[in-house]
Amino acid sequence: MFALVIDDGALAWRERPDPVPGPGDVVVEVAAAGLNAADLLQRRGLYPAPPGVPADVPGLELAGRVTAVGGGVDASWRGRRVAALTGGGAQATRCVVPVEHLLEVPEGVEFVEAAGFPEAFCTAHDALVTQGALGAGERLLVTGAAGGVGCAAVQIGRALGASVVALTRDARHHEALAALGADETVVANDLAGIEPVDVVLELVGAATLPTALSRTGPFGRIVVVGVGSGPRVELDLLRVMGARLTLTGSTLRSRTRAEKAEVVARVAADLGSRWREGALRVPVAEVVDARDATRAYDAFARPGKLGKVVLAVGSR
Amino acid sequence: MFALVIDDGALAWRERPDPVPGPGDVVVEVAAAGLNAADLLQRRGLYPAPPGVPADVPGLELAGRVTAVGGGVDASWRGRRVAALTGGGAQATRCVVPVEHLLEVPEGVEFVEAAGFPEAFCTAHDALVTQGALGAGERLLVTGAAGGVGCAAVQIGRALGASVVALTRDARHHEALAALGADETVVANDLAGIEPVDVVLELVGAATLPTALSRTGPFGRIVVVGVGSGPRVELDLLRVMGARLTLTGSTLRSRTRAEKAEVVARVAADLGSRWREGALRVPVAEVVDARDATRAYDAFARPGKLGKVVLAVGSR
Repeated sequence: MFALVIDDGALAWRERPDPVPGPGDVVVEVAAAGLNAADLLQRRGLYPAPPGVPADVPGLELAGRVTAVGGGVDASWRGRRVAALTGGGAQATRCVVPVEHLLEVPEGVEFVEAAGFPEAFCTAHDALVTQGALGAGERLLVTGAAGGVGCAAVQIGRALGASVVALTRDARHHEALAALGADETVVANDLAGIEPVDVVLELVGAATLPTALSRTGPFGRIVVVGVGSGPRVELDLLRVMGARLTLTGSTLRSRTRAEKAEVVARVAADLGSRWREGALRVPVAEVVDARDATRAYDAFARPGKLGKVVLAVGSR
Repeated sequence: MFALVIDDGALAWRERPDPVPGPGDVVVEVAAAGLNAADLLQRRGLYPAPPGVPADVPGLELAGRVTAVGGGVDASWRGRRVAALTGGGAQATRCVVPVEHLLEVPEGVEFVEAAGFPEAFCTAHDALVTQGALGAGERLLVTGAAGGVGCAAVQIGRALGASVVALTRDARHHEALAALGADETVVANDLAGIEPVDVVLELVGAATLPTALSRTGPFGRIVVVGVGSGPRVELDLLRVMGARLTLTGSTLRSRTRAEKAEVVARVAADLGSRWREGALRVPVAEVVDARDATRAYDAFARPGKLGKVVLAVGSR
């Protein structure tokens, strides 16, 4: 097989040994793989791969067809169109994935869109539902709403019956975010003017969190999932105590196989039918051939896009 | 009746109209009232009383005898020895208290000790159990362990089967804290050397929280209840995400009548029998006559004491 290999900060498309599925695993022939901020960090040497995944092949999500199954996996998986959450190694022509980390791709959804679904929707669902306990009728603020996780969060928030405020750097994608389900759209300078919210999904970090905190009402939950603008913020503990706020954060990548399986199962249960009905969408800003990955990584780093950058790897 | 009145920052013992119990209330003839940091803040105009309690009479906890009951309250309460959590107004010869905010004082426990029980044990129990979900076998770090809430937390942590690390400004009370149940005692300079903990009860604020955070292990919960050393801390969000930490905080005083009733009921259920058995103690650093309250407030502000400062108000 071929894989995108990080070699001292450069990206190269290189031949690698074919992967062999262990018990409970499948091999996916990758059609497309989504890019995430973690890939860019890993390229810069800042985000080492967790144990059990290739150390130098990035990629946290993919879509494609199952070509082989390991011991204990139902043979009927072979040939199915799937998307998967991976701990790394997805930016390759083949990837081994635990069968419990697979999502079936609905008919009519193309691989390039499906490849942008797992990481974005699993991250957003885990943050909003499992960590943030977002409920119907509550107000949700999504910072960095135009990104992949942001677009997923806007749709999940709406699906849960919350009122969604989408925050972006500038107004160019406000119409698109309203179409995805945002009730209000604001730019950072106007954030101080919004009504208090119950849950903040923080996808930007230091640049937005202080203002977001000031707009969080009693019993508010702040869930930090991205810190692209910087990780260090000053926190006023009296504000935390007075409003009884809770601040938490996480990453998906470092979780155990069982933990990831639980997240995927929850997404399948809560969002699967909506995805099949066409009610959930993955805006794709750009599709780039995997052999031209450096261009894809540059595109990801540029601000101003809506949704995902996806690598086209194999056959559609 | 007489009450301690805050008059432009000064404390004066003044006559006030006798309180009348509403439905569900009792009147307590106050024997003793514990001091808390909130009283000192209120004196300085920094912590206004919540609605429904006297604006200028401090005091968040008391012990004494029930002398009258309001509508709907069982008459058998009359004459009983009680301690109570109050929203204010406890530093007076009489105080109206919702009956569901009373704790029965065990035989053999003096009023001066009982007066220091409600705020300390309710705050510590709510923080450790309800907010921090401290479990048996976990490690608990209590910062500011020599204070009233700290001494309560050390005992509750031990009662829950946790391993308790007590942090103090200096070593003078380490023996006493070990006797209360601390497994380890440390001073601030040695905090960086302790093994990771699961729960931090933060009673000091800016001076200790950054180091405490650095010693919090995976899935750690940091519950902030006191910020005497300052409320502003720099938080590294990558650390929060990486270790999946949760930071939360609260005050008891601002809670609704029903919320406080729930806290008191949990304390009675979880700790009542231990208190009756003499297994929970309220170290009292100093007892000061209420007519000499300024001296008591000064004593509270001085570092270096173990446990509570209590005002002696009426008959023992």
